[in-house]
Amino acid sequence: MTRSITVLGATGSVGASTLDLVRRNRGNWRVVALTANCSAVELAKLAREFEAEVAVVGDESCLSDLREALAGSGVEAAGGPDALNEAAARGADITVAAIVGCAGLAPTMAAIEQGGTIALANKEALVSAGEVMTAAVAKHGATLLPVDSEHNAIFQCLEGEDLANVRWITLTASGGPFRDATREQIEAATPAQAVAHPNWDMGAKISVDSATMMNKGLEFIEAYHLFPVGLERLRIIVHPQSIVHSMVEYRDGSTLAQLGPSDMRVPIASALAWPQRMDTPCAPLDLAAIGTLTFRAPDEHMFPATRVARECAEAGGAAPAVLNAANEVAVAAFLAGKIKFTRIVAQCEQVLGLGIPPAPNTLDEVIAADADARRRAGELLERV
Amino acid sequence: MTRSITVLGATGSVGASTLDLVRRNRGNWRVVALTANCSAVELAKLAREFEAEVAVVGDESCLSDLREALAGSGVEAAGGPDALNEAAARGADITVAAIVGCAGLAPTMAAIEQGGTIALANKEALVSAGEVMTAAVAKHGATLLPVDSEHNAIFQCLEGEDLANVRWITLTASGGPFRDATREQIEAATPAQAVAHPNWDMGAKISVDSATMMNKGLEFIEAYHLFPVGLERLRIIVHPQSIVHSMVEYRDGSTLAQLGPSDMRVPIASALAWPQRMDTPCAPLDLAAIGTLTFRAPDEHMFPATRVARECAEAGGAAPAVLNAANEVAVAAFLAGKIKFTRIVAQCEQVLGLGIPPAPNTLDEVIAADADARRRAGELLERV
Repeated sequence: MTRSITVLGATGSVGASTLDLVRRNRGNWRVVALTANCSAVELAKLAREFEAEVAVVGDESCLSDLREALAGSGVEAAGGPDALNEAAARGADITVAAIVGCAGLAPTMAAIEQGGTIALANKEALVSAGEVMTAAVAKHGATLLPVDSEHNAIFQCLEGEDLANVRWITLTASGGPFRDATREQIEAATPAQAVAHPNWDMGAKISVDSATMMNKGLEFIEAYHLFPVGLERLRIIVHPQSIVHSMVEYRDGSTLAQLGPSDMRVPIASALAWPQRMDTPCAPLDLAAIGTLTFRAPDEHMFPATRVARECAEAGGAAPAVLNAANEVAVAAFLAGKIKFTRIVAQCEQVLGLGIPPAPNTLDEVIAADADARRRAGELLERV
Repeated sequence: MTRSITVLGATGSVGASTLDLVRRNRGNWRVVALTANCSAVELAKLAREFEAEVAVVGDESCLSDLREALAGSGVEAAGGPDALNEAAARGADITVAAIVGCAGLAPTMAAIEQGGTIALANKEALVSAGEVMTAAVAKHGATLLPVDSEHNAIFQCLEGEDLANVRWITLTASGGPFRDATREQIEAATPAQAVAHPNWDMGAKISVDSATMMNKGLEFIEAYHLFPVGLERLRIIVHPQSIVHSMVEYRDGSTLAQLGPSDMRVPIASALAWPQRMDTPCAPLDLAAIGTLTFRAPDEHMFPATRVARECAEAGGAAPAVLNAANEVAVAAFLAGKIKFTRIVAQCEQVLGLGIPPAPNTLDEVIAADADARRRAGELLERV
């Protein structure tokens, strides 16, 4: 049986992993839309290979390149934010929402409004637009399948279970490259050290988030929206090997955990095939070869990001959007050498301390809160 | 909503754990039948407390004691194998089958023939009577819920999943008290050393089975009958901490594992409440306090029992019944100081080598194969 798929953010790493799986089962899939920000040539190549209906660049200035690269292919070309939304709204059996950052909010929402199945890899979506997005999911009867390895793990551990029976949901955290560092080493951490993640090969921004543990903080907020068991039932444990991707403990004392390799194709395949399973080329888990899994409590004195994120989840409204925006600005400043590592989270707290906008009710209000927080964070930086 | 329950083997350790859970939710349960072998006073006490319809001793010579202990209680008293079967056949929403050994086969089968839900803790049932029992389950539309911690773990990891998507089912094994011993130490192992299980407080017989790893071998055969994915998809891994109770890996590379304390109330509660969950007093899992989980491949040169068990599962028919019977005789001989530790499995292989009876088609034929193997094993011992 052929299923249709749209990949929002086809040229990024989640997009590439998704299309790798589609390629391996080419006959099972019909590709509706593929999108990118501005990688016109790469996008055109994918659109030709997968015989997409339409290819869209978010940045309209790249549309002429895309048109040229698609000449004679029969694939429609389009550009700009409205074209992204229109492509997402065409509807597909499954839409992989993998556009990074705020740019992904509107097309993800457009897909949700079709009432379809959304494989959600856009972290900002649930962090910044949490209540707005979950309300839209409920209103339109859409299905959200999390693709983040931790949230996908929790989703698998909750399959067929009643949320009322959950005692704990435990997100695992690698602890990042500084998990064994001293306070002095963390104070002196350089961008090169911060982006050297021990377990996953990721972009610079998310690698820094892993080093501060803000990544886990943002995932905590995501989990809060995806799995409404209450904040007091969510916790984080440090697990340096990143083999156990997360866990759910039930009221009877049973804990279910999902384990697997550090390969995004595993959670993506889980979402693509749900509620069935599909083959991936990922090597079987060899725990005897791995030998040892370790666990320890997180240290929120050394890594305050998870505490700050939990406080933002508790505050609700625009607080998580402000945190996310302030963090993006601070991480960029750190990577540019403007602030030191420990200032990243400290600056997020300062921006949050400047006041939180009213709780957003629409995506536009979310985006406004995000922009407002970025402006304040930028101003703070100038005063440093 | 009140549910009815029968506990076959109420005075054993699984029976006690079951009734502990029933006691904590007394209003939710109506107790139909409680049985014991010969512990008349203890059984009568439980029958009074739980206001059972009927109390049955398997050993008819204990019936007068039972009658006396139940005088004036309003609880029916009965004794002997037929009375056990009759009690099991009364039907209950759930029957906990926890009679140890061959004596449990007939009453378990009687419960199955009612088409009810059986929480199966009788290891011999599926090892010795595998095909006969699974055929009866299918014929009468009964539901088997495994209570062994490993099989219950697998059952939980398979919930809502399709067996066709399973890549591996991995039984975890503590490795027993000799997991780090040298060959010389194992050759010289005494009964006292063998029964000192590091993680679970168990009876002598099963503790020796854990030391030889025959317990895991028998569990392997059970798993083969409970989860028909094929022998080639079943494997064993040594996990000394006994926190991960077993795992299932799917074709997409996801592994689901069930973890929990070494407390039988967890898997029993899982079976009693299935497909819901119920509270237990078991402490939450604190992986940060546990710190480290280790895994290693089993060593079938040092511990050949799992190889022998797998060969018996492959052979099918009466082979597992012969293995189980030969093992019981050999373990008793070891505990009595008649043979040394390493002779236990060697003698099982010798008994298997003497020939396997034809595949049993009825419970009586299973019991005959069992008796025949015990006789041969006894004869071998006399020649030692």
